[in-house]
Amino acid sequence: MEELGVRVGGVILNAFFQPHSVAVIGATLRAGSVGRSIVENLRAFPRDVFWVNPKRAELEGRVVYPSITAIGQRVDLAVIVTPAGSVPGLIRECGEAGVGGVIVISAGFRETGAVGAALEAEILATARELGVRIVGPNCLGLMVPALGLNATFASQMAMPGRVAFLSQSGALCTAILDWSLRDGVGFRAFVSVGSMMDVGWADLIRHLGEDEQTDSIVIYMESVGEGQAFLEAAREVALRKPIVVIKVGRTEEAAHAAASHTGALTGSDAVLDAALRQSGVLRVSTIEELFDVSEILAKQPLPRGRKLGIVTNAGGPGALAVDALVGAGGELAVLSAETLSGLSAVLPGHWSHGNPVDVLGDADTGRYVEAIKIVSRDAGVDGLLVVLTPQSMTKPTEVAEGLAAGVKGIPKPVLASWMGGRGVTDGRRRLNEAGIPTCDYPDQAARAFVLMWERSRRLEWLVETQRAFLEPPLPAIRADEASMILAAARSAGRTLLSESEAKAVLSAWGIPVVTTQVATDEEAAVRLATEMGFPVVVKLHSLTLTHKTDVGGVQLNLSSEAAVRAAWQKIRGAVSPDDFQGVSVQRMIIAKGYELILGSKTDAQFGPVLLFGSGGTLVEVFQDRALALPPISREMATRWMAETKIYQALQGIRGRGPVDLDGLTDCLVRFSAMVSAQKEILEVDINPLIASPDGIVALDARIVLRS
Amino acid sequence: MEELGVRVGGVILNAFFQPHSVAVIGATLRAGSVGRSIVENLRAFPRDVFWVNPKRAELEGRVVYPSITAIGQRVDLAVIVTPAGSVPGLIRECGEAGVGGVIVISAGFRETGAVGAALEAEILATARELGVRIVGPNCLGLMVPALGLNATFASQMAMPGRVAFLSQSGALCTAILDWSLRDGVGFRAFVSVGSMMDVGWADLIRHLGEDEQTDSIVIYMESVGEGQAFLEAAREVALRKPIVVIKVGRTEEAAHAAASHTGALTGSDAVLDAALRQSGVLRVSTIEELFDVSEILAKQPLPRGRKLGIVTNAGGPGALAVDALVGAGGELAVLSAETLSGLSAVLPGHWSHGNPVDVLGDADTGRYVEAIKIVSRDAGVDGLLVVLTPQSMTKPTEVAEGLAAGVKGIPKPVLASWMGGRGVTDGRRRLNEAGIPTCDYPDQAARAFVLMWERSRRLEWLVETQRAFLEPPLPAIRADEASMILAAARSAGRTLLSESEAKAVLSAWGIPVVTTQVATDEEAAVRLATEMGFPVVVKLHSLTLTHKTDVGGVQLNLSSEAAVRAAWQKIRGAVSPDDFQGVSVQRMIIAKGYELILGSKTDAQFGPVLLFGSGGTLVEVFQDRALALPPISREMATRWMAETKIYQALQGIRGRGPVDLDGLTDCLVRFSAMVSAQKEILEVDINPLIASPDGIVALDARIVLRS
Repeated sequence: MEELGVRVGGVILNAFFQPHSVAVIGATLRAGSVGRSIVENLRAFPRDVFWVNPKRAELEGRVVYPSITAIGQRVDLAVIVTPAGSVPGLIRECGEAGVGGVIVISAGFRETGAVGAALEAEILATARELGVRIVGPNCLGLMVPALGLNATFASQMAMPGRVAFLSQSGALCTAILDWSLRDGVGFRAFVSVGSMMDVGWADLIRHLGEDEQTDSIVIYMESVGEGQAFLEAAREVALRKPIVVIKVGRTEEAAHAAASHTGALTGSDAVLDAALRQSGVLRVSTIEELFDVSEILAKQPLPRGRKLGIVTNAGGPGALAVDALVGAGGELAVLSAETLSGLSAVLPGHWSHGNPVDVLGDADTGRYVEAIKIVSRDAGVDGLLVVLTPQSMTKPTEVAEGLAAGVKGIPKPVLASWMGGRGVTDGRRRLNEAGIPTCDYPDQAARAFVLMWERSRRLEWLVETQRAFLEPPLPAIRADEASMILAAARSAGRTLLSESEAKAVLSAWGIPVVTTQVATDEEAAVRLATEMGFPVVVKLHSLTLTHKTDVGGVQLNLSSEAAVRAAWQKIRGAVSPDDFQGVSVQRMIIAKGYELILGSKTDAQFGPVLLFGSGGTLVEVFQDRALALPPISREMATRWMAETKIYQALQGIRGRGPVDLDGLTDCLVRFSAMVSAQKEILEVDINPLIASPDGIVALDARIVLRS
Repeated sequence: MEELGVRVGGVILNAFFQPHSVAVIGATLRAGSVGRSIVENLRAFPRDVFWVNPKRAELEGRVVYPSITAIGQRVDLAVIVTPAGSVPGLIRECGEAGVGGVIVISAGFRETGAVGAALEAEILATARELGVRIVGPNCLGLMVPALGLNATFASQMAMPGRVAFLSQSGALCTAILDWSLRDGVGFRAFVSVGSMMDVGWADLIRHLGEDEQTDSIVIYMESVGEGQAFLEAAREVALRKPIVVIKVGRTEEAAHAAASHTGALTGSDAVLDAALRQSGVLRVSTIEELFDVSEILAKQPLPRGRKLGIVTNAGGPGALAVDALVGAGGELAVLSAETLSGLSAVLPGHWSHGNPVDVLGDADTGRYVEAIKIVSRDAGVDGLLVVLTPQSMTKPTEVAEGLAAGVKGIPKPVLASWMGGRGVTDGRRRLNEAGIPTCDYPDQAARAFVLMWERSRRLEWLVETQRAFLEPPLPAIRADEASMILAAARSAGRTLLSESEAKAVLSAWGIPVVTTQVATDEEAAVRLATEMGFPVVVKLHSLTLTHKTDVGGVQLNLSSEAAVRAAWQKIRGAVSPDDFQGVSVQRMIIAKGYELILGSKTDAQFGPVLLFGSGGTLVEVFQDRALALPPISREMATRWMAETKIYQALQGIRGRGPVDLDGLTDCLVRFSAMVSAQKEILEVDINPLIASPDGIVALDARIVLRS
């Protein structure tokens, strides 16, 4: 039992995944009880199983122990099914008896209120004191099919396999188990995590990351819990093994409005999305994709790009695959001249002469396989999908064997869709034996390919993220100045900086801003405008009000002294005297560049989160933005920008040259460094940030400090 | 046999769907042949089946007729499986023998080139002459399961049901048949339409629209064929029966670039999308949705809105449904105070207190059903989804019965997801018997609900479209002026109008434009600018070049005489002398409104197509636009605008009031009328069309005429 107690990758969970003995505390044979279900499910476990129940001395002629200590033999794993109130004492007994892991099936803890939460706290303290790890409470239990271990009250046992499945919903476990049995998907481990009082995502990911029998980790998640710990574990493991997550609650969480533009545009689900992307974790949106992709990722190499080559013997299914491919963000590979001429040499004259390669309904095995070989070797093809429909000349099994042999050793993913019923079953089996995944419909396969490519991209993000963590952070240009402004505002009891203060902070960090000066009376405003040169912009200067546009506090394109005076009057009349501390004056810049937004807010789970996208007044209409978590390297800044639509315009379109992308990248990296370094900043909005070929400049800025 | 030969709804297809006798021309028992497959499949047909083959006198002791005429009895339907070259003669024989319908299975026609196309033309002429209707060629055949009619060479027979399925891909038929048998989906008719030489979408839709045993029409489409005829038939039938289409080739077709902005943004797939929407046809994107929704639409009433109420006994599956619902465009219903207090009276204290209504894992049947009844009666709930997961207290069959009884007669759709395996099979059956559709996963059900709502919306579009066809078209304000400008350009051999000509045409149709005058020398430009007042815009005036911005032909915000002179020089230097016919001068309007685009192009299949959306130079970056087909009523104009994101801003956001929506609607209706009336117009682009609270004005316009 040397493996127990040894920390593997920093986590001891072997008691759960490799137990030599299991005890059921609350064992019973009462019909319909949870305790009985567990007892029955554990009958198949080929190692020691002990029954514990102080109310019974024996059942079926078998010893029932009054307590865990009474067993007198080593117990690795205990399963508790007794009422919540009894659990703290039982955990202490388990700890004292040297039990390594406990699964608490019982409910009645924090979900029921304060009493339950207090029970949890007591349990956790005891567990930490005695070195016991706990899965649950309020869970279905766990299965390790290869060991014959079913420590759950589910009505069926999962098949053995190499996918580790972690679920935060017990109810979904049942449905997924049922589905996996129908579709023949096997599991290395099947874990209902419950409310994760102790063992959480990070522990499980680290343990399964080290487990040689786990090929991929698949998670059904309702809440992320300790965000930073989860991300750290994911970053460690994701390079070695695919981690695929379906996370529900996208929309409920996004409903929380916030004070700033950036705040309203984020919400913790969008933040989680960005966090997962940078951590190499793949996120899917349906249960079907969750398992499709976990199986395929484990079997096939990742594509280097998003370009798929398709070989089919019928046009319709090929078109279906193309639509799904492009709809999901993939691309149809453009075949090389060499490939085209090679194909023309083996195909009839009226073949499709392009991708998808239609080998036509009358294709025999030789023609089919030749076409597959030629397409798979095209350097412009990042992955291959072979579609087969039953036709009179078609031999599904032969083509499957030819495909398997023809693509052997090719360093790109190959997927197959053998469509139809009994006639193709044997072909499908051959493909699966050769490690080539099959999908019922070709559109499903095309979407799975795009998810594979997405994993490639996320691994690149992950590598860049790890690198950025190692780089020394960029310093401020005038650090003292920034800190001084922030400190002054805080000591004045303010959490909102004025526009000119905010711009001064940005400027101190090297972000270009348009010069803005404050006028506290009308004459000063006119003087500033005249000095700067018309046209000018006059804005409300307020230490209390935010979102100046909403209250009519922004007057653009003022061309004369009279216009400045009128603007002063208008702004002063629009707000209450308490909110009016004068106006700020800046030169009017006729937008010959693009209006962008650059912002940051502080997320409760993940810390500072950065936002970049299309700015201006339509920011919430188009919602064209992408989030990222600092630190951000220059390389990451480019990837980050590329997640938005506006990036296409920034690179130059329709007779307009590219903007100063180098300056913009610089701006993003500096902004990230500022947000990481100046911990007193809660939120920042730069909107608009103007990007033009001549440079980058912040026209408006808003900074909120922690209170 | 009175039903044969009688035109039902303008179409005679009874020979295909209600034949009393069938002949196979090319009947054979040769192993592996298509002819044999058809002969075998027709053995189950309980009425007369005749074998025709001049090479054999008998097979299996049964008479083989040398020709269709030799049969000497009435034949309603003939199935031809002989080589293409023989088909024209056989069609003539069939016509002369009084055969009403012929299925041509054989391939070798237009898909093989000119010879095949000539054969088709000959066949079609003969068929028209003799009143024979033809399905195919190059098809799998058709099935009418309730009649025991399988006139295909498929290896299996479909189950009887009330869905009519039309497929343009024979290869997909096989896969779908296989899937339908596994999932228990039955068909009224199963038609492989082949290349639709004669019987096309319009005929089939009209026939099945009249067929009392058809509840819904489901189409797998690769090409739309005669667009106008298809739309007319769809508009006639869609109000009575759901028509659901999956159309492949979205992306390939969209790849065709075109000359104008509008052209580049459309492409016939987007046009088809708009055409389907206005015709009440539902479009889906996966095979799974195609059948899910066709079954559900036939069983359940349509929702009046997009708000779904969810009752579940587990949180996870509820969250999954919410994500899918909102992701697809639906909304979670907000429960009324009355509903909430009603629920609190029957549920334990720690229920979810909102939608989804979690009745909790320990809910008994009574509690479950009470909650269902209360939620289903909330006026703010447009549809109900009930999710059940197996829990120890749960009785899936009882809850199913309670659900069916509890929602009986409720005029809103009810969907169910009974999750899990064998334990819920009986409950699912009870639900299906009660006409309540069940989905394996709750997210699937939520997406289906959104598709039902989408059908409601499309029927509203359809009603408006029918009404718009009946309204008298809006006349031009100065019709003569518009026609004169167009005629003058055409007689000068031009197909491109200058900007000032284009604006004059728009103005004659009542669309407000910014006054633009042409200067053919530098001095005139300066004079015009001075007269209009600075700042001004100076643009290239060219009778040949389009897209002035791309060549540097637009100089904005010129504030002085010197600036106008510089602009003249710059523009003249930017293009070749042949493309330079001077400049146009207009007042600079600082955009305090929104930049929109309004355009039209002529589609080969559907005629004029209108485009509305976000305009300006980023039009192709954001691609925020919607298409519509004229005629457009004011009501339709609002729906049309509401398909874009910018519509939210036009209604007023963040301290900015709404734009002149009345004027904008007027503008759209007038534009539609112009495009319909002035047939010489091929394409129009108004970009930008500025919409502000003060009014609507076209800043730039471009009109291309038919050559």
